[in-house]
Amino acid sequence: MKLLLANANTTAAITALCAEAARAAAAPGTEVIPATPRFGPAVIATRAENIIAGHALLSLVAEHAGQVDAVVLAVSHDTALEAARQLMPCPVVGMTEAACLLACTQGARFGLVTFGGVETYRERIAQHGLAGRCASLVGVDATPQEAVRDRAAVEAKVLRGITHAATEGADSVILGGAALAGMAARLQDASPVPLLDGIACAVTLAESLVRLRLPKPRLGSFAAPQGRESVGLDAPLAAMLRGFT
Amino acid sequence: MKLLLANANTTAAITALCAEAARAAAAPGTEVIPATPRFGPAVIATRAENIIAGHALLSLVAEHAGQVDAVVLAVSHDTALEAARQLMPCPVVGMTEAACLLACTQGARFGLVTFGGVETYRERIAQHGLAGRCASLVGVDATPQEAVRDRAAVEAKVLRGITHAATEGADSVILGGAALAGMAARLQDASPVPLLDGIACAVTLAESLVRLRLPKPRLGSFAAPQGRESVGLDAPLAAMLRGFT
Amino acid sequence: MKLLLANANTTAAITALCAEAARAAAAPGTEVIPATPRFGPAVIATRAENIIAGHALLSLVAEHAGQVDAVVLAVSHDTALEAARQLMPCPVVGMTEAACLLACTQGARFGLVTFGGVETYRERIAQHGLAGRCASLVGVDATPQEAVRDRAAVEAKVLRGITHAATEGADSVILGGAALAGMAARLQDASPVPLLDGIACAVTLAESLVRLRLPKPRLGSFAAPQGRESVGLDAPLAAMLRGFT
Amino acid sequence: MKLLLANANTTAAITALCAEAARAAAAPGTEVIPATPRFGPAVIATRAENIIAGHALLSLVAEHAGQVDAVVLAVSHDTALEAARQLMPCPVVGMTEAACLLACTQGARFGLVTFGGVETYRERIAQHGLAGRCASLVGVDATPQEAVRDRAAVEAKVLRGITHAATEGADSVILGGAALAGMAARLQDASPVPLLDGIACAVTLAESLVRLRLPKPRLGSFAAPQGRESVGLDAPLAAMLRGFT
Amino acid sequence: MKLLLANANTTAAITALCAEAARAAAAPGTEVIPATPRFGPAVIATRAENIIAGHALLSLVAEHAGQVDAVVLAVSHDTALEAARQLMPCPVVGMTEAACLLACTQGARFGLVTFGGVETYRERIAQHGLAGRCASLVGVDATPQEAVRDRAAVEAKVLRGITHAATEGADSVILGGAALAGMAARLQDASPVPLLDGIACAVTLAESLVRLRLPKPRLGSFAAPQGRESVGLDAPLAAMLRGFT
Amino acid sequence: MKLLLANANTTAAITALCAEAARAAAAPGTEVIPATPRFGPAVIATRAENIIAGHALLSLVAEHAGQVDAVVLAVSHDTALEAARQLMPCPVVGMTEAACLLACTQGARFGLVTFGGVETYRERIAQHGLAGRCASLVGVDATPQEAVRDRAAVEAKVLRGITHAATEGADSVILGGAALAGMAARLQDASPVPLLDGIACAVTLAESLVRLRLPKPRLGSFAAPQGRESVGLDAPLAAMLRGFT
Repeated sequence: MKLLLANANTTAAITALCAEAARAAAAPGTEVIPATPRFGPAVIATRAENIIAGHALLSLVAEHAGQVDAVVLAVSHDTALEAARQLMPCPVVGMTEAACLLACTQGARFGLVTFGGVETYRERIAQHGLAGRCASLVGVDATPQEAVRDRAAVEAKVLRGITHAATEGADSVILGGAALAGMAARLQDASPVPLLDGIACAVTLAESLVRLRLPKPRLGSFAAPQGRESVGLDAPLAAMLRGFT
Repeated sequence: MKLLLANANTTAAITALCAEAARAAAAPGTEVIPATPRFGPAVIATRAENIIAGHALLSLVAEHAGQVDAVVLAVSHDTALEAARQLMPCPVVGMTEAACLLACTQGARFGLVTFGGVETYRERIAQHGLAGRCASLVGVDATPQEAVRDRAAVEAKVLRGITHAATEGADSVILGGAALAGMAARLQDASPVPLLDGIACAVTLAESLVRLRLPKPRLGSFAAPQGRESVGLDAPLAAMLRGFT
Repeated sequence: MKLLLANANTTAAITALCAEAARAAAAPGTEVIPATPRFGPAVIATRAENIIAGHALLSLVAEHAGQVDAVVLAVSHDTALEAARQLMPCPVVGMTEAACLLACTQGARFGLVTFGGVETYRERIAQHGLAGRCASLVGVDATPQEAVRDRAAVEAKVLRGITHAATEGADSVILGGAALAGMAARLQDASPVPLLDGIACAVTLAESLVRLRLPKPRLGSFAAPQGRESVGLDAPLAAMLRGFT
Repeated sequence: MKLLLANANTTAAITALCAEAARAAAAPGTEVIPATPRFGPAVIATRAENIIAGHALLSLVAEHAGQVDAVVLAVSHDTALEAARQLMPCPVVGMTEAACLLACTQGARFGLVTFGGVETYRERIAQHGLAGRCASLVGVDATPQEAVRDRAAVEAKVLRGITHAATEGADSVILGGAALAGMAARLQDASPVPLLDGIACAVTLAESLVRLRLPKPRLGSFAAPQGRESVGLDAPLAAMLRGFT
Repeated sequence: MKLLLANANTTAAITALCAEAARAAAAPGTEVIPATPRFGPAVIATRAENIIAGHALLSLVAEHAGQVDAVVLAVSHDTALEAARQLMPCPVVGMTEAACLLACTQGARFGLVTFGGVETYRERIAQHGLAGRCASLVGVDATPQEAVRDRAAVEAKVLRGITHAATEGADSVILGGAALAGMAARLQDASPVPLLDGIACAVTLAESLVRLRLPKPRLGSFAAPQGRESVGLDAPLAAMLRGFT
Repeated sequence: MKLLLANANTTAAITALCAEAARAAAAPGTEVIPATPRFGPAVIATRAENIIAGHALLSLVAEHAGQVDAVVLAVSHDTALEAARQLMPCPVVGMTEAACLLACTQGARFGLVTFGGVETYRERIAQHGLAGRCASLVGVDATPQEAVRDRAAVEAKVLRGITHAATEGADSVILGGAALAGMAARLQDASPVPLLDGIACAVTLAESLVRLRLPKPRLGSFAAPQGRESVGLDAPLAAMLRGFT
């Protein structure tokens, strides 16, 4: 099984980090194909960057259409997830989406701990229709740079965030954002509740979907584009909008 | 991997039917262990039966605690799902729960088609926190008996139900209830949207969860019972309420 | 009027306590008939126990079908309430349900104070469709044992919980759980808002419903079971599933 | 027990009709005291009339403050209910409020059938926080005049509305509006679900509340007004805004 | 353009204050016509006063029907807004309504800071259907009297409330209540987010609506009253209920 | 006042059409500056096109940053609205957003009529937090081509859609999509409720916001980007991500 691991920012080091996590989670026989967009933000931290990265991501996945069995979006904002899902002829899974859906099988409500602001995560979870399953959003006061420089101190902060989420009713906690990659494994023993890593969740969920062999919808807003004209787009993306002949 | 397929009604023929579907969906290496409760309703069609079957199901899964890697509840009402999840030291997945969660990866909203009344499905989907993802609930006017006697006519009705759900905005449709087992495969080609079979969804989701190796929560309302006393229960269930050690 | 007061756990002392409260609240002419299940948990504190107790409760009420004018469920989780309501030919009222409904007549929003975790109360209130009327859920850090041993200290804690709920917008407060029985009367004078006792609320509400003489629905998911077969159940419960005649 | 039955429109014939229904529902020993405002709309059919009637109703109940044990608002819009509740030193119950709350004990969801538009009922039920318990709102195309002139035809229409609500999931149906007074009793036998009459529900609920002897809140937005100055109001209403003593 | 600025309480000094704010916000060519009711509460601080003031406000605006191009309700509770909107042949805008709608264009969610209790604001925002856009309601512990006596101290409290709302996710903050009039301008520089003044928002929104020249609905619950009879009302209001011609 | 009218698709004819509508709605002294993206879809009809157009739109508005007083997005999907709002130092208004907000001042609930599918409008309105104010979404079975070829027939269909929305409770109706531009004026007389044109609403709302002179938030997810690095973007957009100075 070929699994496209599509980053939505242009930082290849983050793609590599996510690919490592994806390979660790993948079943035997799953080939992880990492990919980084050619344009867009270095890191997605604002609404504007997220929109731009959406286009970059669609360009990226379009290049691989027909050549992979599934796509995992390696971006914690699930950037352009629904559009990529409509566009591609294979399953597409977002990492936060996957973590939220699997968290639903771990208890009644989940929490999410990340660095910095939580409002865009709140909105994304609401767009996923899962606001009622989310007990707590915790924004830890730390930066990716601090996480590298002073790992122990930052991980202690994250653990306090996890515990806070649990006391607010979270039966499991999602660690959101590339900067927290790998922490789930290191903090799990000290955590009162299961910790969910978005990449691992997305990889296993994508594998499940490949095995279920569901066709794409032919009706509605997720039916593949057909006959759509455009200007100035990369050839593969423009071709997908026109549809397969 | 050992997967307990726990029916919640006492009709062994339905257990067998579900086991067949589970084996068809299971990955190589997954052993499906079907099980039928010793007491309770022949079929669950009322609120009272669903409560009684919940106890029967807990008794049943308790017998297998520690001997299986995961549990799939082969009952479309997800009977006693949360309680079984709390009780068992392994992942537990409900078939409608699984279908709903995977349907979330197929589009914006899903539909559900079943025989007879839909109100208890509406409630269960709301309890799963997914009411906002459900576009349409269709109760087809047919009985399991008719489905056997006049399969073509009933499947035509179900297909009309599927199409109706799609026009109401469903990007995928769940076929709910044991009486519709196997129909997803037969009707898929004629359906405008992907059809989800609860057993297949639950089996793959359970396999995913086993591979993720998440620990159980030690805190909150899903932490395993400990020191709970009871009267007149089957020994394995009473033992699980008291807790291990 | 004969009022069945059905406990859902097997501790007769709790049944007796609730019966005393019920008699204090009942109108002249109301006979309170206390009943305790023959099997199930000693106390309901986990999801698994609640499911088991649901079966036990249905067995218990089935024994009294046709012999009582109404049923009050003396269990703060409203265990198996909807199923008992479907099953019985008379009104059935849950104690937390009743307290919530009557709290709606005391102001805009209510609070609930109980011992320990509040998540299952949050879910139950949401299932009652009343989440929007609930301003605050307070879990007091105390046990039933402490409430007996050091009543003054625990009641001071409960009063702080009540006041907290009021500052969060609760115009009235429900005291939830058998362990808080009787506290409403003792703490009312010191409380800034009215305190609701579930048993008292349920008894008066049941009496009201008896006087209204509403028929049971003949359609939908609350119509009485008819012709339902089962295995291994107590004779009265099995008979009710088959239906009268 | 003295029960003020306060109409909110100025049509004494409607007050008399409601008083008759109230007396039929009241327990022995309950004295029903009907009252009609001195100013305001003849019938409340618009938003503007409902606001004006709110003031008229407050003036009316203020005259009886301290002289009655409870108040039932005999107006299907529950006009000024929350304000009257704040103002009066005794329980105050609205007829649609009461019907909705008691309908919650009859099944999962209820319907409401009335003459004409349903939007303001939709809003009122949502303000009561019970939108999730309402399955169906049916506006029958008929007028109070027609109901008098051609009772059989109009009642047939209402019965079709009731049946429609039941097929949409209503386990019980509220008949809303004075023009449908008395129909519940006449249509009940033909109805597949229980029919709720607002006046009967409100009277029994008010009697229950009187027996529970709950104090009024001293905190929050339902605490009685104190020291509020006004201009040009009836003396009793102005006095209540200033507070006692 | 003639803009009626209708206060709902009887304190002319507050009308004057609001008129000053309205004139500061109005476009050149907009004439602000302040008006104060002849009866009702001096200030609206309770539910009962708000209902009474609703009638007073309708009487007041009815006097100006046909003589003004739009109405702004200068009362932070948006008292009788929907009724005035139905009644009047021109646009009617509430000051908190306007602030909430314009706040929606400043970010994802807004906050509201006021003196005293926030529960009635919570309800009003929910009635406006905007609960999901409201991040935070802050009740500052201060009185209008203190705001005059010790302006600096009270404004410091308000600023702390604003900052708190921002940390809870508010991208803008509404200052609610006449007692905070003028503070938005003084505190804006120190505030991390834009501050919205209800009067200014309502005036500009009303001007926009006048320019859009939208007709009134002829159908539904906002169609103008026609042929409605009443007793004891001011002549202009009674005339409007009967309808023109 | 300079008002940038930013189309999000690359069809200049649609930009011109919208500019004409904008100029008709604009106040004297408002200069409308139409602009069309250099890349992206010819028309936005799919999820993928909407994402791509989002990037194109941000590139477009970034070119005008600092040179205009406000931006109106002339695209019925409110494409990239929140991102543009974060990015630009002036007010940004979406045409469907504006129509929804102003519709809130016309009654309780609004409807929306458009050509084709309605699901993405349903989602957008929900993201605006206004699902509770939306009574009806009507997808008319017609194409823009038909609207040109057989205007009378298509407008009759749209009018039937409007009337249907009104009977479902809409007090006003938004005509959504460029293909319905101009219809509001032509159909208004025959419509039972006011019709809202997105461009006209957005222009007047933008003018209001300019006059209110609200600062941009310095905190939260709408604070302007600062120091954000990117690859391969147009110079103005890259500059705005880095921030001023």
